[in-house]
Amino acid sequence: MRVSELGEFGLISRLQERLGMPAAGLIRGVGDDTAVLRSEEGVLWAYTVDALVEGVHFDLAYVPWHALGYKSLAVNISDLAAVGGSSPSYALVVIGLGGDVEVEALEEMYEGMRECGDEFSCGVVGGDIVTSPRQMFVSVSLVGSLPEKGFLGRGGARSGQVVMATGTLGDSYIGLRWLMAGKGSQNECSRRHLYPRPRLEEGRKALELGATACIDVSDGLLRDMGHICEESGMGADIYLDRLPISDAAYAVAEGLGEDAVGAAIYGGEDYELLLTVDESRVTEMEKKLSATAIGRIREGKAVRVLDSSGHEVATGRRGYEHFKEV
Amino acid sequence: MRVSELGEFGLISRLQERLGMPAAGLIRGVGDDTAVLRSEEGVLWAYTVDALVEGVHFDLAYVPWHALGYKSLAVNISDLAAVGGSSPSYALVVIGLGGDVEVEALEEMYEGMRECGDEFSCGVVGGDIVTSPRQMFVSVSLVGSLPEKGFLGRGGARSGQVVMATGTLGDSYIGLRWLMAGKGSQNECSRRHLYPRPRLEEGRKALELGATACIDVSDGLLRDMGHICEESGMGADIYLDRLPISDAAYAVAEGLGEDAVGAAIYGGEDYELLLTVDESRVTEMEKKLSATAIGRIREGKAVRVLDSSGHEVATGRRGYEHFKEV
Repeated sequence: MRVSELGEFGLISRLQERLGMPAAGLIRGVGDDTAVLRSEEGVLWAYTVDALVEGVHFDLAYVPWHALGYKSLAVNISDLAAVGGSSPSYALVVIGLGGDVEVEALEEMYEGMRECGDEFSCGVVGGDIVTSPRQMFVSVSLVGSLPEKGFLGRGGARSGQVVMATGTLGDSYIGLRWLMAGKGSQNECSRRHLYPRPRLEEGRKALELGATACIDVSDGLLRDMGHICEESGMGADIYLDRLPISDAAYAVAEGLGEDAVGAAIYGGEDYELLLTVDESRVTEMEKKLSATAIGRIREGKAVRVLDSSGHEVATGRRGYEHFKEV
Repeated sequence: MRVSELGEFGLISRLQERLGMPAAGLIRGVGDDTAVLRSEEGVLWAYTVDALVEGVHFDLAYVPWHALGYKSLAVNISDLAAVGGSSPSYALVVIGLGGDVEVEALEEMYEGMRECGDEFSCGVVGGDIVTSPRQMFVSVSLVGSLPEKGFLGRGGARSGQVVMATGTLGDSYIGLRWLMAGKGSQNECSRRHLYPRPRLEEGRKALELGATACIDVSDGLLRDMGHICEESGMGADIYLDRLPISDAAYAVAEGLGEDAVGAAIYGGEDYELLLTVDESRVTEMEKKLSATAIGRIREGKAVRVLDSSGHEVATGRRGYEHFKEV
């Protein structure tokens, strides 16, 4: 059977079986974006990796090298944000590239990484640069210790809880469409796509304030909400008219003939946090995390999107999955 | 300027400058194979990454998937061995591949990783599988805590000290030539190439017994000795007639018309440890690590290889370097 027949998530679950017993000290492991380990000294560490492949995750035709560096670190820091905001953290970077790449371009990329690292207390401490003539890639791994409070997982959503999202959704996708249309000058949406801001501080606060599940929106709201539901054994209703959509997303989308609401539901790479919290915590979360209540956890399985009259307007699992058209 | 004009090591040193100040808690960082970190709780961690690219580091025409999995973990564990044998350790694996790869092949690869992990107390705790249609790659990062004794670096060689090597050298290169010649059945050398055994236990003992510098032989004896010399500000003489070369390497090399001695000097991927120790420690190292004294550190810069009459037979920096023919 070929990989394309299974898709990314089916593949991961099949390969997990081959790894046998979980390692000693492993609190949360394979299958999550971020592993959580307890060292022999009792310290909790978050450990995560993400790879970006040219032509798959980015196109150098419209992603400047500086942004590539910034973003490759930011998307990993976002994974730390989603477990509760581990900081400081340390990065190792692997770059695979051909010999004809300009050194100056790589220097810009490193500048971008450093800027992101400086902003979010993440030190790039080493790595590996290897020849990969046919396809460029960047793979960043991060390790950082977790606050004593523990960490946030995906499996903690309970029936009746409120679903909240930080910031606004859909900007990154609209920004990507803008970049692909070759419009040249940057706007708020394209900047969101190129320079995503990991919600590290918000992740830390969410853990402190009692959020019970968390994920960062990388594959799109519907799909990432689906991950929380699956691992919690729950379903969720998302209210269409509550989705936080920026004025910029509406404006840029209109100019492109795109749908800002669709982008908020299906678009990926916003790197906002999606949280589940008890009703009693909602006001505090709104105030301290600038988060918006967008839905509710219920018994069941599916993630449904409902309009203001309670009609279902979108379901299913659209969103990005490697190897499969979905 | 293009990357190919600078070469791997020149590129790394230029990019380092762009990273600015070293991160807080970083004991040993960029430029080494393995970073060493001190967490806020005072625990020392070793943190390392290595990537293998199809057509550059391995060829699936003669590297079975199972071996690819085993080796991709083993070469990283070898980096931990070289800093003093951190164990247990935890791995994150990134695989980039096309959709037409067989799932069963990947399962074999994961079995290989698990076998290596079981042998050397390394748990594969997560990772990322991404589409990379034009070029397959595997990138493995590892983190593990270090013994209280500290760690071994490359900069600790002192004039007059003895250079020692564990095991035998050159087998892997001869094994690679055997595999490339399509001889089919495996022998001791080809197994050394496909299933390198990281010297984790030896690294731990070397640290305990007072070795002052250490590196694992991945790029070849001359080049890796060169790394120790550079970082220690020293030179070294290697004695040709002391090089530990296996009977298997001589026998297989002869059948192939290859030079086993040249393979021991220039060949890479043996993953033995190269150590510097005080004269007084040599006997103990020979006994407890099965290590061989092969040379001596001296004032100066170059690494020279001398024959039994003291004539220089090889110098220079031949060995593997990415982006450059050397």
